[in-house]
Amino acid sequence: MITVKDILDYIETLAPCSLKMEWDNVGLLCGDANCPVHKIMVALDPFESVCYEAYDAGADLLITHHPLIFVPPHSITTQTSVGRSIMFLCEKGISTINAHTNLDCAPGGVNDILAQTLELEDISVMEPKGLLRMGTFSTELPYFLAHVKHKLGTPMLRYVDGGKPVHKVAVGGGACADGLMDVYDAGCDTFVTADVKYNQFWDAKDLGINLIDAGHFYTENPVCAHLARQLSEQFPELVVEISKKHRDCMEFA
Amino acid sequence: MITVKDILDYIETLAPCSLKMEWDNVGLLCGDANCPVHKIMVALDPFESVCYEAYDAGADLLITHHPLIFVPPHSITTQTSVGRSIMFLCEKGISTINAHTNLDCAPGGVNDILAQTLELEDISVMEPKGLLRMGTFSTELPYFLAHVKHKLGTPMLRYVDGGKPVHKVAVGGGACADGLMDVYDAGCDTFVTADVKYNQFWDAKDLGINLIDAGHFYTENPVCAHLARQLSEQFPELVVEISKKHRDCMEFA
Amino acid sequence: MITVKDILDYIETLAPCSLKMEWDNVGLLCGDANCPVHKIMVALDPFESVCYEAYDAGADLLITHHPLIFVPPHSITTQTSVGRSIMFLCEKGISTINAHTNLDCAPGGVNDILAQTLELEDISVMEPKGLLRMGTFSTELPYFLAHVKHKLGTPMLRYVDGGKPVHKVAVGGGACADGLMDVYDAGCDTFVTADVKYNQFWDAKDLGINLIDAGHFYTENPVCAHLARQLSEQFPELVVEISKKHRDCMEFA
Amino acid sequence: MITVKDILDYIETLAPCSLKMEWDNVGLLCGDANCPVHKIMVALDPFESVCYEAYDAGADLLITHHPLIFVPPHSITTQTSVGRSIMFLCEKGISTINAHTNLDCAPGGVNDILAQTLELEDISVMEPKGLLRMGTFSTELPYFLAHVKHKLGTPMLRYVDGGKPVHKVAVGGGACADGLMDVYDAGCDTFVTADVKYNQFWDAKDLGINLIDAGHFYTENPVCAHLARQLSEQFPELVVEISKKHRDCMEFA
Amino acid sequence: MITVKDILDYIETLAPCSLKMEWDNVGLLCGDANCPVHKIMVALDPFESVCYEAYDAGADLLITHHPLIFVPPHSITTQTSVGRSIMFLCEKGISTINAHTNLDCAPGGVNDILAQTLELEDISVMEPKGLLRMGTFSTELPYFLAHVKHKLGTPMLRYVDGGKPVHKVAVGGGACADGLMDVYDAGCDTFVTADVKYNQFWDAKDLGINLIDAGHFYTENPVCAHLARQLSEQFPELVVEISKKHRDCMEFA
Amino acid sequence: MITVKDILDYIETLAPCSLKMEWDNVGLLCGDANCPVHKIMVALDPFESVCYEAYDAGADLLITHHPLIFVPPHSITTQTSVGRSIMFLCEKGISTINAHTNLDCAPGGVNDILAQTLELEDISVMEPKGLLRMGTFSTELPYFLAHVKHKLGTPMLRYVDGGKPVHKVAVGGGACADGLMDVYDAGCDTFVTADVKYNQFWDAKDLGINLIDAGHFYTENPVCAHLARQLSEQFPELVVEISKKHRDCMEFA
Repeated sequence: MITVKDILDYIETLAPCSLKMEWDNVGLLCGDANCPVHKIMVALDPFESVCYEAYDAGADLLITHHPLIFVPPHSITTQTSVGRSIMFLCEKGISTINAHTNLDCAPGGVNDILAQTLELEDISVMEPKGLLRMGTFSTELPYFLAHVKHKLGTPMLRYVDGGKPVHKVAVGGGACADGLMDVYDAGCDTFVTADVKYNQFWDAKDLGINLIDAGHFYTENPVCAHLARQLSEQFPELVVEISKKHRDCMEFA
Repeated sequence: MITVKDILDYIETLAPCSLKMEWDNVGLLCGDANCPVHKIMVALDPFESVCYEAYDAGADLLITHHPLIFVPPHSITTQTSVGRSIMFLCEKGISTINAHTNLDCAPGGVNDILAQTLELEDISVMEPKGLLRMGTFSTELPYFLAHVKHKLGTPMLRYVDGGKPVHKVAVGGGACADGLMDVYDAGCDTFVTADVKYNQFWDAKDLGINLIDAGHFYTENPVCAHLARQLSEQFPELVVEISKKHRDCMEFA
Repeated sequence: MITVKDILDYIETLAPCSLKMEWDNVGLLCGDANCPVHKIMVALDPFESVCYEAYDAGADLLITHHPLIFVPPHSITTQTSVGRSIMFLCEKGISTINAHTNLDCAPGGVNDILAQTLELEDISVMEPKGLLRMGTFSTELPYFLAHVKHKLGTPMLRYVDGGKPVHKVAVGGGACADGLMDVYDAGCDTFVTADVKYNQFWDAKDLGINLIDAGHFYTENPVCAHLARQLSEQFPELVVEISKKHRDCMEFA
Repeated sequence: MITVKDILDYIETLAPCSLKMEWDNVGLLCGDANCPVHKIMVALDPFESVCYEAYDAGADLLITHHPLIFVPPHSITTQTSVGRSIMFLCEKGISTINAHTNLDCAPGGVNDILAQTLELEDISVMEPKGLLRMGTFSTELPYFLAHVKHKLGTPMLRYVDGGKPVHKVAVGGGACADGLMDVYDAGCDTFVTADVKYNQFWDAKDLGINLIDAGHFYTENPVCAHLARQLSEQFPELVVEISKKHRDCMEFA
Repeated sequence: MITVKDILDYIETLAPCSLKMEWDNVGLLCGDANCPVHKIMVALDPFESVCYEAYDAGADLLITHHPLIFVPPHSITTQTSVGRSIMFLCEKGISTINAHTNLDCAPGGVNDILAQTLELEDISVMEPKGLLRMGTFSTELPYFLAHVKHKLGTPMLRYVDGGKPVHKVAVGGGACADGLMDVYDAGCDTFVTADVKYNQFWDAKDLGINLIDAGHFYTENPVCAHLARQLSEQFPELVVEISKKHRDCMEFA
Repeated sequence: MITVKDILDYIETLAPCSLKMEWDNVGLLCGDANCPVHKIMVALDPFESVCYEAYDAGADLLITHHPLIFVPPHSITTQTSVGRSIMFLCEKGISTINAHTNLDCAPGGVNDILAQTLELEDISVMEPKGLLRMGTFSTELPYFLAHVKHKLGTPMLRYVDGGKPVHKVAVGGGACADGLMDVYDAGCDTFVTADVKYNQFWDAKDLGINLIDAGHFYTENPVCAHLARQLSEQFPELVVEISKKHRDCMEFA
């Protein structure tokens, strides 16, 4: 019989906790390590709707990238979304595991998958922290923008034109724009990330870097399919399902 | 129909949150404020065994003095006692409310009840913080020790003889011995509290104060009966029950 | 003869320094208060290109919303954009004044102008901090989105549909999404701000609030025209010009 | 002629200062390293009464476990017990040396002597910090309680029954109950220490550990005789005396 | 019989503790408040040699401006000058009282006496902190320098010429040069203080202020005679003596 | 063509930035690394008058020991001396480089040159921090005082007589008196430094050390000539000039 602990041990081989940032919270954040597991749901986030979907699908384990608990809570009540999620998961006996910045950094993790999805070549770790990846992809910026949209499924990009053709590309799924100086120091001309702020676009313009906000969801979600595939191969007796309903709630108009 | 919110509102009148110490955690720490309440269990602590007892008794609300959550948790799992309690309460749909340092300070709260139980006279608030109480009770120390044991049901006291007969008595339920200088400044000769440490006994001897450790459980538990009685009177349609099994786990040999 | 000091004194009447946030830097950040002023350029930012434009236009004073110096610099060199701007301004004898969070909060400042531009009715200050504004505008969300784009000139909005029609609208120019709980507590159904992050969109969805990111530049820039008009009226002998070249560097694709 | 410095150097070989906790204060805390020494008094504490006893006995050096100065004093006056002790020692020319957490950790120090006094077998250091000791002693809990009382001379124990027979025993003289998780991780079933608080007894019960509070004085005092013997052997020309009057001031009733 | 406590109470009327800076240490720093006093020695500092002089003179109380204990000591030994002083005072039964920043600020204290000694007119408190004094004295700088040397007995002054004649003079005994901006804001042209550093002389030159370092000892010592006189008048039955040997150890060459 | 960058690289070989104290600010603090350099002015400080002298002399680079910017400024205006200096340097296109604590520590830097100027023998680094130097010079103190005045050109010394002839001398240019315990531990009898405070003279007397304040300017300025010579030799095509007007603003009377 496979237990939550077995899955946790396998995820440790994929994304060791030692790789996580100091402020992060990863691992089994809710549930019972000794519970048997029959069906796993994989999703980017453990939002309430995803918890319901996991239950409806008959999953007894939910594996996500973002943590269920980020700020340790003073209470677990229906007043907050996190409280409602925890109460529901406890009531239904569903455990939740997450791999966050450890999966960002891990070989074959969020940023490697993002680089591969964007079909970069000669992919390598970009900075000592081990978070970002870089690789080559030579084209003009408008073609690269179309390529990013197509490969990630992002409906709309926000970007600043750094004034150079695309050749050396850095990627960081989610909110990585504060790594801009590292990107510059690494000699990259283009940076794909998300949640970019006004002054960060200007900093990029100033440094002559094409900075592209391709969406937090779209830059990280590709890792889910990869993770689900790895879990299926490792535990062929389990059903592993990717959330069908979870998508970006943000729209463009 | 009475809800958890109604009980919470009533407890706010007894022990307003504004009275709590800054570091404390009180109120609805687990559950749903909108749930209907039919039966309440009152206990000093929300330990696992008390949660089970509440469930066995059919209670849908557990009211305690000590908080269910003190250090906000990074995860809710079966690895820790607090995790198991929260998971069980969520699964069984039992809400938990607590009143801690707000109840210590409140008129008619832990320390007022302790002073009354010890039959002090002319009871008053002792220091600006509003936590401790003092009153008079004139006798020799050995007789007072016997009186404390009898009234609180403590099987054994730990104490230091300050060299004076008992006349002006300070009380502080639970671990209040760091208020010793306040007790001295207030002119008391005797101090009943709990969880007293080695150097605190020596400090008391040095100051000439009879310092009596009457047990954390025994100095605070009297408030439970008082609180249960108040709840019964306020909500006659509810069943209010005091935990029958919860007692001090510490023994003397 | 009008000096930089005279302008500074007038701006103090419009946006008193006492209104600024503690961490902010406002006032005369570069130059000489005693210099005579003949021509003023007004712009949202004191970026390098704006400094050049001011010089080309013959301005001897540049007035902006964002500060020239945010993190006090250890050196003033051509290595950084801020260094280059300061060196150029000193060389050309152009002074720079800014009004940042004081102008956000001031009556007739950034957020009042934003609320007026969006044609809200019954505009009032929303929270004790005095930063945000709220007012009424009743319509369906799609119509409101079109209205915001039209009035602010934003080419594209990012938003989450909170599931309610628009009625009570909060506004905060620039990055104000961390005021979301204040917006909720004020009973608003819709919030227009900028630089919104992934989890903030989800928080809004969770709270049932229509959250609209209308762009940092587009939500704040309307104040420039208003400020220029006020300066012209106060100092009719001066030429006051709004930057013609400064616009958002961020594009959509 | 033997000086205070000679004794200090010898104690450094027994309990090197490098072993002390960062917050601790050890060594020559009052007096003159160059003074000749003829008679030493050894005691657990440098309380006022012990200082008087040392003087009455003709000692010119007082060696204790607990430090004379813990919180560095802003003044040395008769207002405080520490002030009175320092003034008396200076007046009478008596130096004071202490070895506190360095002696707790040292081989042959407080915790080794405690383990030996309790006749544990296969004694070893328990955790990386080097403070606690563990060893084996197989019996039922009631017999072990009697054994502890007999060997340490403690008049009364406070304990929680962890539900297991005694086999693997951890010991920590004085207030070491915050090392409970280390004791659990080391696989011990029983822990002898002192100054245990209410919630620590409950934590032990929760972890299934027999936790015994055998008194701060009684768990540490055995080291005095050992230390006195070592000093006598090293300095046969000196008179070394153990305090006759110093005992626990705390009593049971 | 007059006790140390009586003197302490009188000094509280001259220089209330409430006037002291937060970081300062004043009052009875060594000794016994209940000891009878027959003879007082007054000195600027409680250095070792002054303690010996007090003993040789038969004083049972030493009153100084600077505190005996500034950094609370971890030990009282012959290793340090402070330790040796405390040990000697305790051995000889001499108490020590000091009034430091409270005496700097007090009416009739260090800075008032300094201003009077320099024969300033219209003396007033200079800044909200209440530390510095200012007054008028109109002359050319070279004459003022000679006046300062003559009145304070300073063998040599260090100064910077601010380029203005002397008219409005600020004074601060001891190391007060970091109050330079306050002096400037108060419109003074000349500042007499001590322990002035290189960059402070340059700052003064930059601000056009005549900054004069008249020596820490010479600017503060005048208060001793004044204090001794006050004590003699208040307690005619006591002998009050000013240290004869204590003078500045620093020389010029 | 030689650029500012070339000079910066050469200074890095003389006084590597890695030698600077953590709190210090060194290197190119104002200007453009790519500017051509024809003439360098060397001075101890970048005060306003020195900036004017550099301009009058036709220098395009100013090299100093003390930094132009110490506390990073919130604004660059004519209100402050630093602001005026930066504005003038930017206007005139003069770059400024400094080497501060890195030059204090460097071989051949401030303290080595000071030791050589004082003709010490067997000069070596004194403490692990690498700041101070020591060497031998055997004479009586009065002769040494005369020697120091003569060699450094200091018009007047301040000193305390430690009661010993001069033999082992420590030196530290500028304000190094807080290294007094290091000087004592190194076995030196004499210490030449500057900006010595009242209590530091007393500490020296207490430790039996001859402590000599030879002036901040006079103990550091000798390095300027040495640095100018090195620059001339390395860059023979440049004109290197030492400030003629900059001298200590402090005078004795």
